[in-house]
Amino acid sequence: MKPLGPIPADYTAIDGELAIGGRKASALVKEARRTPLFVYSRDIIAARAEALRAAMPERLAIHYAMKANPYPPLLEHVADLVDGLDVASGGELEIARKAGYLAREISFAGPGKRDPELKAAITTGVTLNCESEGEISRALAMGKALSVKPRLAIRVNPAFEIRGSGMKMGGGAKPFGIDEEQVPALARRIVDEGADWRGFHIYAGSQALDAAAIIETQANVIALAARLGEEAGVAVPDLNMGGGFGIPYFDKDTPLDIAAIGSALAGQFGKLPERLQQTQFAIELGRYLVGEAGVYLTRIVDRKVSHGTTYLVTDGGLHHQLAASGNFGAVVRRNYPLAIASRFDAAAEEEASVVGCLCTPLDRLADNALLPRAEVGDLVAVFCAGAYGASASPANFLGQGPAAEMLV
Amino acid sequence: MKPLGPIPADYTAIDGELAIGGRKASALVKEARRTPLFVYSRDIIAARAEALRAAMPERLAIHYAMKANPYPPLLEHVADLVDGLDVASGGELEIARKAGYLAREISFAGPGKRDPELKAAITTGVTLNCESEGEISRALAMGKALSVKPRLAIRVNPAFEIRGSGMKMGGGAKPFGIDEEQVPALARRIVDEGADWRGFHIYAGSQALDAAAIIETQANVIALAARLGEEAGVAVPDLNMGGGFGIPYFDKDTPLDIAAIGSALAGQFGKLPERLQQTQFAIELGRYLVGEAGVYLTRIVDRKVSHGTTYLVTDGGLHHQLAASGNFGAVVRRNYPLAIASRFDAAAEEEASVVGCLCTPLDRLADNALLPRAEVGDLVAVFCAGAYGASASPANFLGQGPAAEMLV
Repeated sequence: MKPLGPIPADYTAIDGELAIGGRKASALVKEARRTPLFVYSRDIIAARAEALRAAMPERLAIHYAMKANPYPPLLEHVADLVDGLDVASGGELEIARKAGYLAREISFAGPGKRDPELKAAITTGVTLNCESEGEISRALAMGKALSVKPRLAIRVNPAFEIRGSGMKMGGGAKPFGIDEEQVPALARRIVDEGADWRGFHIYAGSQALDAAAIIETQANVIALAARLGEEAGVAVPDLNMGGGFGIPYFDKDTPLDIAAIGSALAGQFGKLPERLQQTQFAIELGRYLVGEAGVYLTRIVDRKVSHGTTYLVTDGGLHHQLAASGNFGAVVRRNYPLAIASRFDAAAEEEASVVGCLCTPLDRLADNALLPRAEVGDLVAVFCAGAYGASASPANFLGQGPAAEMLV
Repeated sequence: MKPLGPIPADYTAIDGELAIGGRKASALVKEARRTPLFVYSRDIIAARAEALRAAMPERLAIHYAMKANPYPPLLEHVADLVDGLDVASGGELEIARKAGYLAREISFAGPGKRDPELKAAITTGVTLNCESEGEISRALAMGKALSVKPRLAIRVNPAFEIRGSGMKMGGGAKPFGIDEEQVPALARRIVDEGADWRGFHIYAGSQALDAAAIIETQANVIALAARLGEEAGVAVPDLNMGGGFGIPYFDKDTPLDIAAIGSALAGQFGKLPERLQQTQFAIELGRYLVGEAGVYLTRIVDRKVSHGTTYLVTDGGLHHQLAASGNFGAVVRRNYPLAIASRFDAAAEEEASVVGCLCTPLDRLADNALLPRAEVGDLVAVFCAGAYGASASPANFLGQGPAAEMLV
């Protein structure tokens, strides 16, 4: 038996079935008219945003990293809850503008920005987090050619990382950002060339569950930004401190202590170095805001026993849930939180493996999990499906096509 | 320094540039009007099919497993070279029919077939490789309801696997196929209920480069099919022996010795058990036919140095090349074959890492590779991109969208 990840506490049963946004899974599937289906809960997203607001110092802006989930209705919902948006491509910028975000609220980070993307960002007036000297040169030249002052910040590749983070974005050689020691001269150059200098973006890692590690990182980020500003002799209008707030996916994972982080940050804000007194601070969160608000519903198409193992074969799979299948950055596959949605309050009574419909052994949703007995027709719920699900999976693999999506 | 995989011998330079189908990479990109671009070579696909024909006994049918690459023009090209097609979903079936494949040439395998997919297969008249007792029951009932004799074969979950195969499809508990010991009674039932009984599909693994392992597996497959036919007392009209023929992706990989396999298979065919004398044998190959025929072309957008590591940042990445990035079934990431396409015959002179444009450390195309010095604007070629590339990657991740595709 392999343990399942923890189901977020927000979910309860109605008539024995999993309910999302106060509605039964079967009713949601009926409305969507098909499975697989991603359901995102407005209420859970709003609750996460409110909890963050309550925990964080008022001075801190909260941005949404739309790479986590770019589903347009969700993006529109999130717009009312956050202060800014971080996009990672020209494609995301276009979707964000359609969803009603204002250019001044948007920043754009990502290595490998193409000229048309730089042009779109500069003409629209979004902040470019520049990732290299070459990109700064291109952006400055393009601003001049367009007679527009580009809004430029520098993404710094910090010498530190978040201890124990799921994905390291700093520390040592990286394709992201500009190494600390190259930053002051480049910041000076941006100011000298008359661009609209915005400050720094310092992102040190993601999916961290250890508040102490995040607290330490945030202190380092603030100290680094102050030092770089000093060395460059420039103001720091904005400091995007990155994100990294994780959610529990796996057995024994525990929720992040955001109260501790907020309190430490308030402490930091209370003793800011001179150079950062006027700075607008922001964190950018994707997964933390929307990850637990999403559920992936898929129907059991077959139930079979092979050499003593019971398989529940669903109509979903890794083409919608690459990360849950263990094929996206995981070294060892572990089970996400998963349940039989149509028997949500039934007692677990058998060990079964839940697989997708793809003809590949990679297509696993749960290995040897303890579950209520489920039959063909039952709905399976994979939790923590709100971030890096639909958009981060190969939807067209094996001719399958995308899942339905719904915001309730 | 980390070694790159071996570039297929089919590729040469014209005016110093990589040529595909006799045309320079830059000319192909110009025609496509953008990068990233997948280019597939008709000639290389035809050459692989011809080499297979020459090596294999005449009696053996060659099928194409379209999951490897469903790009419609490629599918149409392959139709002239093979005897049959294997699809893995209703979606693939639809694409295959549009590409001109006849129902009699098509078989459909895959766990988790939904009722509409069974119905499409039965009314179209394609062979269903049944994966469970439940699926057989559904197919038989549906055939009766539709007054159509369904063409049914049984996919067997063999107790053996291909030794050393990249992906195991047999041996022990599996979601695929029906355990050997359950097969005879179910085969008997299919015949007794008046369906069009087609025989067996036995698939034991994929991406094997060891001819001896494949030879051993094929002998096991033949013996198993004969035994199951005997035990059931049924004829074996068709035997799909699966595929598993690998291609060299990584350093030290060597091409599969298909002559040895063909010769061993001819020996097997010369001493067939009575039960299989009339059987039509087939192998199904995807990767082997088209994998080396594809090249992924992406342009260098940035060149930067971080803590001594040179990064070539491209406009492509794991959203088109998930497997090459090391995030699709790989335990340890190794470099695919890769070259600077625009300097294909230049000498290697520096160590560089090639990354994609996505804002994630997972987005790597080559780690610490020895390459000619490349500049912004140069084209990078990732080889072995003809199979499990475009369709097996999360194209919409970070708002990027699909790459262009072209058959030349």
